[in-house]
Amino acid sequence: MNTTDTLSDLARVLETRKSANGGDPETSYVARLLAKGPDAFLKKIGEEATEAVMAAKDVDAAQAMSNKDSEAAAKSKLVGEVADLWFHSMIALAHYELTPADVVAELTRRIGLSGLDEKALRKVAERAKEERMK
Amino acid sequence: MNTTDTLSDLARVLETRKSANGGDPETSYVARLLAKGPDAFLKKIGEEATEAVMAAKDVDAAQAMSNKDSEAAAKSKLVGEVADLWFHSMIALAHYELTPADVVAELTRRIGLSGLDEKALRKVAERAKEERMK
Amino acid sequence: MNTTDTLSDLARVLETRKSANGGDPETSYVARLLAKGPDAFLKKIGEEATEAVMAAKDVDAAQAMSNKDSEAAAKSKLVGEVADLWFHSMIALAHYELTPADVVAELTRRIGLSGLDEKALRKVAERAKEERMK
Amino acid sequence: MNTTDTLSDLARVLETRKSANGGDPETSYVARLLAKGPDAFLKKIGEEATEAVMAAKDVDAAQAMSNKDSEAAAKSKLVGEVADLWFHSMIALAHYELTPADVVAELTRRIGLSGLDEKALRKVAERAKEERMK
Repeated sequence: MNTTDTLSDLARVLETRKSANGGDPETSYVARLLAKGPDAFLKKIGEEATEAVMAAKDVDAAQAMSNKDSEAAAKSKLVGEVADLWFHSMIALAHYELTPADVVAELTRRIGLSGLDEKALRKVAERAKEERMK
Repeated sequence: MNTTDTLSDLARVLETRKSANGGDPETSYVARLLAKGPDAFLKKIGEEATEAVMAAKDVDAAQAMSNKDSEAAAKSKLVGEVADLWFHSMIALAHYELTPADVVAELTRRIGLSGLDEKALRKVAERAKEERMK
Repeated sequence: MNTTDTLSDLARVLETRKSANGGDPETSYVARLLAKGPDAFLKKIGEEATEAVMAAKDVDAAQAMSNKDSEAAAKSKLVGEVADLWFHSMIALAHYELTPADVVAELTRRIGLSGLDEKALRKVAERAKEERMK
Repeated sequence: MNTTDTLSDLARVLETRKSANGGDPETSYVARLLAKGPDAFLKKIGEEATEAVMAAKDVDAAQAMSNKDSEAAAKSKLVGEVADLWFHSMIALAHYELTPADVVAELTRRIGLSGLDEKALRKVAERAKEERMK
């Protein structure tokens, strides 16, 4: 995970799913969504957001009942739902000729603006970079 | 920028916003959301998903009117809304002791399962790795 | 048509779709959703909310282009999506032993509290009542 | 609630909140939302849908713990969130010159089409009508 830019790699794969690039709606779910047009993948964003919220509430409920097995299952489901949410966001980004790198750049900028300490962020980033270089 | 690594850096900053780690609701938006508990940040996921969808529809409308300025503005807004969506997803992940790396791992796994060609993914990943090594 | 009474009539029909009341998942969409349990109909609420928002944005876009045909089509779609949204809300209400009458009572109370002039509301209600009595 | 068409009455009040009809953004929440334009009230639809889903999940969790007090509180919250959802839907309808009666008409039509027994619906409606006439 550390040395490969997985999100950007995935974005490149999504690119190949566009019909202009030979994506085949018969064999690829992504090609099918892209061929159907925006409403098809945009509504999935709303749907997956709701499913992520429901999975998170399931984690809360499992914790309230101190049910470790249910908690682990709900956490695993939450990861899956956030993955689906990000995945369909990335299909939308691809359609509009945007990339996860655009989003992450904005995220970095915004977090700096919304009460997060930019210096702390920079420090963390530097330390992580050093670790990766070792 | 390595987007995946940047997300991990951001996740480390979010960690410092937890009250257990000294996060201060008075000065940090993230610390405030985390202190309020799940419903506060989960409802933002639904809200930001809707705003992302609206921004995408604005891009569609601008394209239908061949209005290049509106299109650029709407695309920029879309990037911002997806950033907000991912940001609040990451706050939820932090609260449940999960990470963007978990999501990206699942994303990779799922894309392999859902009609995307794993070999294509691997080829893209290898080429990108080679480029980064140059 | 009396909208509120119609909603109550519909709620009574939804009641008959519960498996305890003989609802058959094989022949009824509502019985099927109710049999699957909360997550099945709750996620539809998020999905239909998103579709309602998209249809509304289509009306905006059609108006911006002064396209009367597209506007009429989008408005018709919007009505359908809000209907779907309320419909799935009513399935959830039925599951939790609540009714549209509970919602409408709260709506009346809330509108009184949120900046709407209660006196105006009363006047309108009285006038409408008088008209119905004619 | 039964003999007054409350939703249509509420829709008439919303009508008076439009700036063209003298609605004042300074004193009325609805007038303020309408003055801001579609994105302001549309995003509330997504937000309130998510809050309704969360309240429903709280009912589920309270039931799983056999906590009657929490269950009653969560059900009451659910009614409030569905009320908010329908309320903001009705603001959108008002903006687009549509009414709850349009939605209820579509709802009646759709329920007839989607696996619900139209005859059962008609019977229920007739019985309710007879009761109202007594």
